[in-house]
Amino acid sequence: MKKSEFSFIGDIAKMFGSLPHHGFEPIGDDCTVLNIGDEALVLSTDMLIEDVHFLRAASSAEEVGYKSLMVNISDVAAMGATPTATLLSLSLPESAQGEWAEGFMRGFYEGCAKYGVALVGGDTTASRDKIAINVVAIGRAPKESIKRRSAAQVGDIIAVTGKLGVSSKGLVDIMFGDLNTPAAKAHRRGQARIEEGKFLGSCSAVHAMMDVSDGIASDIKHIMELSGVGAEIELSKIPTDYDIRFATTGGEDYELLLTVAHDRFDEVAAALLNATGTTLTKVGRTTADKTLRWLDDGKPSELELKGFTHF
Amino acid sequence: MKKSEFSFIGDIAKMFGSLPHHGFEPIGDDCTVLNIGDEALVLSTDMLIEDVHFLRAASSAEEVGYKSLMVNISDVAAMGATPTATLLSLSLPESAQGEWAEGFMRGFYEGCAKYGVALVGGDTTASRDKIAINVVAIGRAPKESIKRRSAAQVGDIIAVTGKLGVSSKGLVDIMFGDLNTPAAKAHRRGQARIEEGKFLGSCSAVHAMMDVSDGIASDIKHIMELSGVGAEIELSKIPTDYDIRFATTGGEDYELLLTVAHDRFDEVAAALLNATGTTLTKVGRTTADKTLRWLDDGKPSELELKGFTHF
Repeated sequence: MKKSEFSFIGDIAKMFGSLPHHGFEPIGDDCTVLNIGDEALVLSTDMLIEDVHFLRAASSAEEVGYKSLMVNISDVAAMGATPTATLLSLSLPESAQGEWAEGFMRGFYEGCAKYGVALVGGDTTASRDKIAINVVAIGRAPKESIKRRSAAQVGDIIAVTGKLGVSSKGLVDIMFGDLNTPAAKAHRRGQARIEEGKFLGSCSAVHAMMDVSDGIASDIKHIMELSGVGAEIELSKIPTDYDIRFATTGGEDYELLLTVAHDRFDEVAAALLNATGTTLTKVGRTTADKTLRWLDDGKPSELELKGFTHF
Repeated sequence: MKKSEFSFIGDIAKMFGSLPHHGFEPIGDDCTVLNIGDEALVLSTDMLIEDVHFLRAASSAEEVGYKSLMVNISDVAAMGATPTATLLSLSLPESAQGEWAEGFMRGFYEGCAKYGVALVGGDTTASRDKIAINVVAIGRAPKESIKRRSAAQVGDIIAVTGKLGVSSKGLVDIMFGDLNTPAAKAHRRGQARIEEGKFLGSCSAVHAMMDVSDGIASDIKHIMELSGVGAEIELSKIPTDYDIRFATTGGEDYELLLTVAHDRFDEVAAALLNATGTTLTKVGRTTADKTLRWLDDGKPSELELKGFTHF
């Protein structure tokens, strides 16, 4: 985009800020939150455009369908909510009608069936040449389970679920024609952390949470900015099977990035492992000084790390 | 679309029918309905694609922004609910970033401000060449106010709000280069029937309701099919200032098409006029035989009327 996405969104938020908000929380998290009684409804929306987010030559229709669902329900899980339903808008050029559309729906269905998510509405239209997809995911949670990017406290443990970097390593494998490496397969069939998100939502010791969509080097900054804290991350602690650059700046891992009250981290990690089989790894801590510092075995790192940029 | 939109949607509904629905109602109405306690939340989603739904040369960015909102909040009003919030996804090629995007947002804001609707979330992405827009509208209503296409009863009065045909007449004017006729202006700044939808939602005598998006010749068939009734429509009663073909087969009027208990029509029409200043006109009645009959002063009409087709 000519203007960066963030400045355009900032302009929009300012423009619409004076309108009545009808109980919806301000823009800023993975999802929109609407409180109804004791319950919170969360909504996330994402658009995927052919030749920007996927190439028809590189991804099967099934993979695109599966991924379109996964990115959205991952956002719901990152709020501590359980995804229950989706709305799907599909704009299809003639070349993608019939076989491609059916493959897309099979992939979308595979994800819905795996996580028990309903398809409850949508829109289908023609398109001149490129495919456009918009998915809305809807989730529900008890009000007190909702986790926001703004809730980190100074001195929290920074932690991630699972392992990082596999998706971006897989993307590079695919770009080099290695379509069947374990990383390439994982890239095509990434798993949103649905059970983990719901469980961590129920833990009061978990403060801020989001999913790792652009790499933690970029994503931690959202938590820092909205919580008004800094962060210190120890590179050697980052759980990964691949190069540290994949693990810190690679996108689409769907792992959860969270901050936890420092005296309750061990308890939360043990309970998560017990409930879901997923490990929670301590990678750093939040600080008072609002800067981001990378450490390498306790010493300042000289790596230059930037998050994945979509533009 | 190669397969018609309806058959593709039918296939999808069948495929996803066995998944848990988490309290959401089955696909079929203008909006998805989720009941939470005594309240109903309704959601509608629509995609607008450049060169399919609008031409950059023929519509200003403001007009496209305004219309993108209006088609969606009209769907919410047609369920008897009040639109409160929207989610907006925008995919913009470089040529539409900057000035076009700002104009679009001004038009979208104009509609939001007019109806007190919040913008609570969204997504912005790049695109290769065409603009893609997806809008989700969210509305709320007491559970008992929700009106469905399936609720018409045999012997109901079929009625419409306001006057029909102005939007399609305006579109034809614009196509012929007459950009400033009253109809052309009305086409660019159509008004969703928000107050009317909310009011009619509160009337128990109103049975089925939807908005006129493809012309009543096409739209009445949705009510017939889902309610298992037929319909008899008197052409001479259709409220319009234009040719009867615009009034019956023209799209995007945003008027409401509803069925009302026959012995309470006069009461409902008077109350609507009093509450909103909008007229409700009786155009026909529902019948038991499941066919659609057009009458011309009581005799069978020979006009061949088809609804507007988007493909």
